[in-house]
Amino acid sequence: MRGTSFMTQRSSMNKAPAIEAPSIKAIVFDAYGTLYDVQSVESVTDAAFPGYGAFITQVWRLKQLEYTWLRSMMGKYEDFWTITKDALAFTIETLGFRAEAALFEKIAEAYNTLAPYPDAEAALRSLSSYHLAILSNGSPPMLRTLVRNSGFESLIKTVISVDAKKVFKPDPRAYTLVEEETGFTPENVLFVSSNGFDISGARSFGFHVARIERVTRAALRAELTDAERIGSARMFKALRTQAEHLGFPPDFVVNSLGDLPALVSRGFALPR
Amino acid sequence: MRGTSFMTQRSSMNKAPAIEAPSIKAIVFDAYGTLYDVQSVESVTDAAFPGYGAFITQVWRLKQLEYTWLRSMMGKYEDFWTITKDALAFTIETLGFRAEAALFEKIAEAYNTLAPYPDAEAALRSLSSYHLAILSNGSPPMLRTLVRNSGFESLIKTVISVDAKKVFKPDPRAYTLVEEETGFTPENVLFVSSNGFDISGARSFGFHVARIERVTRAALRAELTDAERIGSARMFKALRTQAEHLGFPPDFVVNSLGDLPALVSRGFALPR
Repeated sequence: MRGTSFMTQRSSMNKAPAIEAPSIKAIVFDAYGTLYDVQSVESVTDAAFPGYGAFITQVWRLKQLEYTWLRSMMGKYEDFWTITKDALAFTIETLGFRAEAALFEKIAEAYNTLAPYPDAEAALRSLSSYHLAILSNGSPPMLRTLVRNSGFESLIKTVISVDAKKVFKPDPRAYTLVEEETGFTPENVLFVSSNGFDISGARSFGFHVARIERVTRAALRAELTDAERIGSARMFKALRTQAEHLGFPPDFVVNSLGDLPALVSRGFALPR
Repeated sequence: MRGTSFMTQRSSMNKAPAIEAPSIKAIVFDAYGTLYDVQSVESVTDAAFPGYGAFITQVWRLKQLEYTWLRSMMGKYEDFWTITKDALAFTIETLGFRAEAALFEKIAEAYNTLAPYPDAEAALRSLSSYHLAILSNGSPPMLRTLVRNSGFESLIKTVISVDAKKVFKPDPRAYTLVEEETGFTPENVLFVSSNGFDISGARSFGFHVARIERVTRAALRAELTDAERIGSARMFKALRTQAEHLGFPPDFVVNSLGDLPALVSRGFALPR
């Protein structure tokens, strides 16, 4: 089923079932894990600490997300660059390794040169008749650098950082920035993410939501059959790639960004 | 150094350095992971799914915590029993396993019969001249069952659930319950936890905080030396047992609950 798009029925939990297709005018993308591959830092982490690249990559990302949630809850916001460095420091320290300032900075900088997913550019080009935007936890300088480094500057009309609200996703205040920055109300927005917390938050907020299911259940299960060999990378996949049990399922599920244009061309109707 | 208590200097980040010992009148404990061993569910999870007990135990706990944070941020509170079951359902589903209702309920119930840590009862008895309390994410029925099953009913004077505020730790509203339920202001409270998010939250709120460092850095590093063999249990330890980089370090660090009476007998002064 890889590469085949399929859609879930709109959940009836929070809205009445919509028979008519939604009127989508803007498509808003999550950045880290949706357009850009956070796993692509592994070449840098493994070069710095050979053999530990996978572990560092996974714990770094997990702690980075955790710190966005905890700081939001505590009301102690620091921007995503600070958090990215704090999570990296935690990870290196946990292993008992040391990185002098120049090496540390070089590793952290990997988050500013993340590789876009191979399907990202073509998908953005296909959807250019929509108002395309990013809403990301990233700090404004991080997002500017990331979008410029990937050559997506001309493809994305509006790049929005949660920094303006000093709170991270899935706090609803972060999602209000979409209307404030683009003028489109949630009914006219398709929010696209592969992150479970973001899918739940965007759906709870009121956007139409498409989940990019980069790791299917079947693919993950095939990797989890040997309990003895569940290492850090598989643990990460188990924690971060599957549909959440938070009560706010996406409207649509596709396997890649490349499936979005077909969804759009059907006018966001469910396939017959 | 196992079993030896040591203390950190009070951080000067949020309060002026205190030369005089604080005036502690109440000692408030976190429950899950501090008085009660969440790892003790593994006998139940492994009996249900042989060979996968460790993986299920770790992912279940990690998702349980994650859902408390995300639901708090989204303003979509459900109580800890619902979240515990949702996280278990996520975990079983991720592995591609199924549990019929009776088995599912039996596994979930393991959270109501968690084993207390071996050092918990003696520590509570030694500290009985203080007002002893629990502040926990657990729902009121979960906490009642847990405290009764462990025989701690006569040792803990006040059992407080965050449920009254419909938000989880480390949201500051959860910590306000200590004063509301016991009458003691933060200056007179020693908050005891082994959970990094809780230590940070309690310290940020204004309590004096003692961290129970159940897994020392050195012990964890010794387990992480073989990158190939970093499985789910070690990944959990790396994520959940080490000091956080969130800017709110504890006032005191001890290796076990059994070290608390010595700390108290010194009048909470740093050792000479």
